[in-house]
Amino acid sequence: MKNQITSALSDFFFEYETPRQVLVRNRRVGVVCRLIQLGVLVYIIGWVFIYEKGYQSTDTAVSSVFTKMKGVGYTNNSGGERVWDVADYVFPSQGDSSFVVMTNYIMTEGQSMGTCPELPGKHNCNTDADCEGGSFKRTGNGEMTGVCVNRTKTCEVLAWCPVEDDRDVPDPPLLLSAENYTLFIKNSVTFPAFGVSRSNLVEDVDSNYISSCLYHPLSAPLCPIFKLGDIIKLSGLNFQTVAKVGGAIGIVVDWTCNFDVHVKHCKPEYTFHGLYGSKEGSSVGYNFRFARHYMEDKIQKRTLLKVFGIRFDIIVQSLARKFDIIPTLTAIGSGVGIFGVATVVCDLVLLYLLPKREFYKNMKFKYTDTQVQDPDSEAGSTETDVSKK
Amino acid sequence: MKNQITSALSDFFFEYETPRQVLVRNRRVGVVCRLIQLGVLVYIIGWVFIYEKGYQSTDTAVSSVFTKMKGVGYTNNSGGERVWDVADYVFPSQGDSSFVVMTNYIMTEGQSMGTCPELPGKHNCNTDADCEGGSFKRTGNGEMTGVCVNRTKTCEVLAWCPVEDDRDVPDPPLLLSAENYTLFIKNSVTFPAFGVSRSNLVEDVDSNYISSCLYHPLSAPLCPIFKLGDIIKLSGLNFQTVAKVGGAIGIVVDWTCNFDVHVKHCKPEYTFHGLYGSKEGSSVGYNFRFARHYMEDKIQKRTLLKVFGIRFDIIVQSLARKFDIIPTLTAIGSGVGIFGVATVVCDLVLLYLLPKREFYKNMKFKYTDTQVQDPDSEAGSTETDVSKK
Amino acid sequence: MKNQITSALSDFFFEYETPRQVLVRNRRVGVVCRLIQLGVLVYIIGWVFIYEKGYQSTDTAVSSVFTKMKGVGYTNNSGGERVWDVADYVFPSQGDSSFVVMTNYIMTEGQSMGTCPELPGKHNCNTDADCEGGSFKRTGNGEMTGVCVNRTKTCEVLAWCPVEDDRDVPDPPLLLSAENYTLFIKNSVTFPAFGVSRSNLVEDVDSNYISSCLYHPLSAPLCPIFKLGDIIKLSGLNFQTVAKVGGAIGIVVDWTCNFDVHVKHCKPEYTFHGLYGSKEGSSVGYNFRFARHYMEDKIQKRTLLKVFGIRFDIIVQSLARKFDIIPTLTAIGSGVGIFGVATVVCDLVLLYLLPKREFYKNMKFKYTDTQVQDPDSEAGSTETDVSKK
Repeated sequence: MKNQITSALSDFFFEYETPRQVLVRNRRVGVVCRLIQLGVLVYIIGWVFIYEKGYQSTDTAVSSVFTKMKGVGYTNNSGGERVWDVADYVFPSQGDSSFVVMTNYIMTEGQSMGTCPELPGKHNCNTDADCEGGSFKRTGNGEMTGVCVNRTKTCEVLAWCPVEDDRDVPDPPLLLSAENYTLFIKNSVTFPAFGVSRSNLVEDVDSNYISSCLYHPLSAPLCPIFKLGDIIKLSGLNFQTVAKVGGAIGIVVDWTCNFDVHVKHCKPEYTFHGLYGSKEGSSVGYNFRFARHYMEDKIQKRTLLKVFGIRFDIIVQSLARKFDIIPTLTAIGSGVGIFGVATVVCDLVLLYLLPKREFYKNMKFKYTDTQVQDPDSEAGSTETDVSKK
Repeated sequence: MKNQITSALSDFFFEYETPRQVLVRNRRVGVVCRLIQLGVLVYIIGWVFIYEKGYQSTDTAVSSVFTKMKGVGYTNNSGGERVWDVADYVFPSQGDSSFVVMTNYIMTEGQSMGTCPELPGKHNCNTDADCEGGSFKRTGNGEMTGVCVNRTKTCEVLAWCPVEDDRDVPDPPLLLSAENYTLFIKNSVTFPAFGVSRSNLVEDVDSNYISSCLYHPLSAPLCPIFKLGDIIKLSGLNFQTVAKVGGAIGIVVDWTCNFDVHVKHCKPEYTFHGLYGSKEGSSVGYNFRFARHYMEDKIQKRTLLKVFGIRFDIIVQSLARKFDIIPTLTAIGSGVGIFGVATVVCDLVLLYLLPKREFYKNMKFKYTDTQVQDPDSEAGSTETDVSKK
Repeated sequence: MKNQITSALSDFFFEYETPRQVLVRNRRVGVVCRLIQLGVLVYIIGWVFIYEKGYQSTDTAVSSVFTKMKGVGYTNNSGGERVWDVADYVFPSQGDSSFVVMTNYIMTEGQSMGTCPELPGKHNCNTDADCEGGSFKRTGNGEMTGVCVNRTKTCEVLAWCPVEDDRDVPDPPLLLSAENYTLFIKNSVTFPAFGVSRSNLVEDVDSNYISSCLYHPLSAPLCPIFKLGDIIKLSGLNFQTVAKVGGAIGIVVDWTCNFDVHVKHCKPEYTFHGLYGSKEGSSVGYNFRFARHYMEDKIQKRTLLKVFGIRFDIIVQSLARKFDIIPTLTAIGSGVGIFGVATVVCDLVLLYLLPKREFYKNMKFKYTDTQVQDPDSEAGSTETDVSKK
């Protein structure tokens, strides 16, 4: 028994199986097959390996973004000069990756809780019966008291009074100076699979450079300081329009890195896109309401701001690649499989299309016609020839 | 030399190798093998290609979300009528993808810096020794002064006074009207690999439709305006409970797109999930504290709000697919490999399980018994027959 | 015709093709080939299957994070004792996944719109000509009036006056007590492909445990309550430094789950990283400006805070794996392909390197020298021997 196993093992280890093959000397088939095989080889090497970098595994990054605006705005409307600094025009103030820069506003000062008529034009009424007391309208400012105010022909509401009049949006926008604000972006990315961390303040970008540079797509593509006017222009929008009704801009920080070369070549690329553009036609603009509450003579009051602004979304997009044995071997293995397909195609040509197909069939196949054979003669290893068939 | 290379090359190009095969005429083996091969074929075509769409490459989107609430709330507690509009009940106000709608609150008005006793029930004390001066308690409201106040039997603290009394949460919630608020979601996605941008305001959703529609899972699945009460109901929660203690709802915008068909079929799907539900049992509810600071008679004061609210997280989930030659050929190549496995299985059946296995072994293999052979006779290509073995 | 098809079909189903092979009995080739094949097998089973878990498909989660700070700070500068609670020192207050805890600040109280000189040191001037009226400086606080103030030798600006003096950052930081604040993280993840939802309040973490536990990497790795000082220490930073100038910390919640075992083993792991560290050298620190507006004697005033703080980014990283038939079969199929490569290598050894290569070539190949053969004799299935060549 032990002997048998040893012998089987030694048989297994000292033997080697290789398929027997027919070498067909035929120009047509030969050229066709070599061309198909060459095509497969070119595809595997050229496309999968070189073009699509199939020998690399990929990873996306976790990222963190911090932003900081700089610049001062100035308005001079309804008699009052006013300066707006970063604490006033950025929402939220703490430097998120998504924030709004106010460019235009409708300010309603000194609102307090009380009753007043709705704006003319909306919620019109003729008699008190049109204003059902105690109910709300979806686009109304408050709870209807049931009274139709004669002067304005609108329903009276319990609300923050006086109600905001947003029928006219200031044009030109009040804070056109926003064009000169600058935005500083700090972005750090980590590729966990490769254990690499990068910051958008790459090797060449030191404190010195930052203190003086301004982003330009060609001459300063790595400077992390952007002029708002430049961003709007690069995203294909018109600053004056966007500043008036608001808009949303996506700043894409693209980290496409190849870690087979030195990590210092892994640099961010900035692109700018209008997010909800005029293309859609519906629901352009960007605005929100914001209130500042205060007490005056023991009465709670508020200043309501309808803020039109540019919303910036810093979107970090990342794809790192590095040589990895698994995708390499998977690509090779699957390439060998496709080679097998090429062989099948050539065999079909050989066995079904060529005039001498019967001859080649005979060369390739050996038939075991067990039905006609004597089952006892186990040793009958005969090469069935065509005449038999 | 040059001749040799030319000849080798022409040999290479005009020759074609194809494996020699045995055609086994055996019903049992034939049927078994064809079934196995058929299974593999069905798996590759049916599952990998049709069901799992293995011929397509995939991409996820970068997305940007903007939200806008509409609606007015009304409260009438402790003698004062009050109306709450969007500037008052949404945190933060600028329309982020994650925001909180206040549905209940505990307001502590007129707090100023000073000393006052802690709430009864927490930080109880009997003597001054129980209240170590200058130290803090993790859940306390301020710095202990070292005095135990007799009246309340709690430690005195330096804090915003009077301290908030949050022992009773208003029930029913003060802003039950939140059920009727509406939420408008604007979402744009970009699939960078395919260069496609989409907005949730798809072709059929124009300004006209938006001005009048309301989301309904069956009758208006593309309307981007949602009633809060509907969202809560669709996420399987109870509005009154959630409104009282707060909760978190995930609104998933699902972009599962197939770009092999026209891009207009790429539409969002909205689903709603309770995020931190009652299932966990621990730490239900959602609340945070928020202060409004003001000056009164040169003294800094604040109004503290403990806000109970519904937190909405708009989660964009995306998966786009498009025909790509690489995954197609990889799938085919690996399918051919599995075909090879099928052949191995059939060979095992043929060579080890069938009664006539010795006969088939003989047909399939040619032995080169170099040990017994004369090493000089290189031409000795003899078919070793079984008797020899 | 019908007969023919039936016969072809029955031929197809009852026949089975298997490649004919040469069994080479040669120790050297045998051992080499078996070793290569063994290597491939070990690679496929050991690496692809066991180490890289190639039999599993993967999915990343959509997640939602809610945070809550607890703790009270105390400052005693410029004569006034002050207590800071969570409504005062967290920005934003609603418990986002990214938030800032104030640890130091420069407060400028009672600013109102007016004209005042810029800070000495910046925007210095000698004569009025140095201060161009109506223009702005990028790092200035307001619009220049065109006057050079003699006393400070700086330009006069229209701005919120007096302008902030941020030349000296308080050291030690004012809110060193931040070290003792605690952070509670609630995180729920959903793996859409596997239909599994998990919360970081896993099975063992119930209300009881939460009320008393404190995160420790070894003794309490699942407790979702973190002391700020611990977080800073674990991220490798120095609390005092970070508290003074600000900093950013990434808290990575890592969900690496294997759903082939029970879902309860899917637990979060917390790690802490300094995001914009001192490594870069440039632009350390984290600060932003924040204003509280109020009315005093009908004049709009504000308190400006330059907030130095620690920004926390909760980053959820997830990778779940589960057995899936597709990657399994793809791995097997591509493994078989690599086996094919092994065979090719062995054949090269056999046919080109061994001394008896001619003999083996003869065994393996059958030549069809159609050029010299009589094209009529289709039955001429002769084994071409070496002498012929």
